[in-house]
Amino acid sequence: MNGFIAVHCGAGYHSDSLKKEYQKTCYAACRKAAVALQLGGNAVDAVEKAIIELENSPLTNAGYGSNLSWNGSVECDASVMNGQTLHFGACGAVSNVWNPISLAKHLCVKQCDNLSLGRVPPCILTGHGAKSWAERMGLETVDDHKMVSARAFRNFKHCKRKLKRYSIQNDIKFSPLDTVGAICVDSNGIVASGASSGGVSLKHEGRVGQAASFGSGVWAVMSRDGLKPSIAACTSGCGEHLIRTQLAKNSAESLLESSPILGLDKCLKDNFLESPFLWDVPERLGGTLALRFDSINGEGELLWGHTTKTMCIGYMSTETEKPKCIISYLPPKVEAGRKAVVSGQPFKVSMQTCPEFKWEVTTLPSSNGSL
Amino acid sequence: MNGFIAVHCGAGYHSDSLKKEYQKTCYAACRKAAVALQLGGNAVDAVEKAIIELENSPLTNAGYGSNLSWNGSVECDASVMNGQTLHFGACGAVSNVWNPISLAKHLCVKQCDNLSLGRVPPCILTGHGAKSWAERMGLETVDDHKMVSARAFRNFKHCKRKLKRYSIQNDIKFSPLDTVGAICVDSNGIVASGASSGGVSLKHEGRVGQAASFGSGVWAVMSRDGLKPSIAACTSGCGEHLIRTQLAKNSAESLLESSPILGLDKCLKDNFLESPFLWDVPERLGGTLALRFDSINGEGELLWGHTTKTMCIGYMSTETEKPKCIISYLPPKVEAGRKAVVSGQPFKVSMQTCPEFKWEVTTLPSSNGSL
Repeated sequence: MNGFIAVHCGAGYHSDSLKKEYQKTCYAACRKAAVALQLGGNAVDAVEKAIIELENSPLTNAGYGSNLSWNGSVECDASVMNGQTLHFGACGAVSNVWNPISLAKHLCVKQCDNLSLGRVPPCILTGHGAKSWAERMGLETVDDHKMVSARAFRNFKHCKRKLKRYSIQNDIKFSPLDTVGAICVDSNGIVASGASSGGVSLKHEGRVGQAASFGSGVWAVMSRDGLKPSIAACTSGCGEHLIRTQLAKNSAESLLESSPILGLDKCLKDNFLESPFLWDVPERLGGTLALRFDSINGEGELLWGHTTKTMCIGYMSTETEKPKCIISYLPPKVEAGRKAVVSGQPFKVSMQTCPEFKWEVTTLPSSNGSL
Repeated sequence: MNGFIAVHCGAGYHSDSLKKEYQKTCYAACRKAAVALQLGGNAVDAVEKAIIELENSPLTNAGYGSNLSWNGSVECDASVMNGQTLHFGACGAVSNVWNPISLAKHLCVKQCDNLSLGRVPPCILTGHGAKSWAERMGLETVDDHKMVSARAFRNFKHCKRKLKRYSIQNDIKFSPLDTVGAICVDSNGIVASGASSGGVSLKHEGRVGQAASFGSGVWAVMSRDGLKPSIAACTSGCGEHLIRTQLAKNSAESLLESSPILGLDKCLKDNFLESPFLWDVPERLGGTLALRFDSINGEGELLWGHTTKTMCIGYMSTETEKPKCIISYLPPKVEAGRKAVVSGQPFKVSMQTCPEFKWEVTTLPSSNGSL
């Protein structure tokens, strides 16, 4: 199958010394997604494969190498939204699951199941329950320490020392580098979005952030009639602020404006930088990666916007040879958290089938009564 | 302080034999809220006190007496939204906390805290982490078995037996009676909303429903300029469906239409009964309790709407002698999950202060670096 994939590994501040590494990670993630599509996977599969690559990298704050929580454990959030079925699956504050994104995808896919006695498959699972569900689905689980990278452990020790030294509030901030994410449109016109995050450093045990909250970390809605374009978005930044502003949903929907780039710019201004929901937040740090796609002509636009110093992005079409990976910067004199930079790139996907999509999904086999 | 409070103990099917008991529970909840206001509490305090009463009742599926999960434990969700600060606090899948709503309120209030090193107070805590946070806040925690009522245990055994007998899908459904909730406006014009739920019977461990999801279980936005009315809503029904449709936010915002009753009716039709997000759901069961309030003249409207057979509601003003508690029914020949009934009641609150509200909150003392 053909398709277009875009990934990011956080909106925040990417240090010069590691820029190349971040770009390489995005490059590898795009390649994995493209292979998934070429092997017949759909947009949801491609998003999963891209994010597995991002999670497996010790550089990113997702999966292995995630920030450690207050008590020194790794607890991950991840979610997937399928724009065709409008199903959403998420896991929050889950430990020991090697690839949280696969758990989120499974939860999303299982939304199609019919359980006995009219029970409804869960869309959000957290903590131990999420882990036990993952085990039952045959997903890889590992010991606690296997999720901890040397870098994350050093950072944890450093933060704890800092906290000891500065026990009152001060201006030293943790890096807001956060969620990784991916969006994809395949040649059947299906759009999907995924996000994965280790959450903020020293977070409280059990804390759930935007990557496990509906409308905040991911959004994907496929056009039902071809009249409106399909849209998808994934976000990065401070989880609590992205939850309150529902930035994934809002930024995806802003691309429905006649000019997507102006739409996204206005959205980041009205719904984030000047949002009444962030009235008490001094620095509004966040970023979004979004696309709109017209299945009639196979044309789309990829857009990204952020209020952080940098955002690292990669994208590719299965019809081009290799991914393009860039670091997007705020203009030099602009202070982070005060203004947004928005940019974009057109793309094209050769559609596989006639563009009259049917609003239906393959029915999965019914479960036999177990959850 | 004066104010107006409304509560519900679930949209679902209230059996004739227990109707009086449900109404009494709503009655008591309204009284507790009114006392809280009269003692100087604000809308958030009143909502908490009302829901504590609903949680403590063995009749409701919230707090003590909640539905048991698949493995026989009680795991609760609860949330509070303060319409003045726009802060949201929620706990999900939490065991052993006697009043989950108090934990949610604490999380909401603590959003005002400044943590050291630019860390952000969590807005959603789940599982063990939520319990340990509650303990540190001095909230009452109890042993597992103390949360289990005789009724809930009987129901659990009954459901498990049913599942054994009907291992394939069939038409026998669990009762969808679910979340309890409360909304309030006080004589300073502050609006607040709260919800609490034990979740669906036999749910998977760690499952989080609408009562812990932003925009789905509760919504409250106070007018910032007096031009638009203040709004609040809380919802009840199948958590997964209320998450997908963000019914609390949508139903509250629908009251901003020139006719709130037509607005809510349209919302339940467009955003719930005919929502594209529920295209694969055969029965759309839910209910909402919502209010709008004009702080200039102290006049408001309470509305409720549901697609379930019944919804049990109580409401009172601190300026009237006693609460009014009713059971709202779908019209006789209407099948549940197909149509909505919407009804309402005007109310008045004598405002305490001049109606020029300032968009500011009392700053709470800074934390000294602990979470």
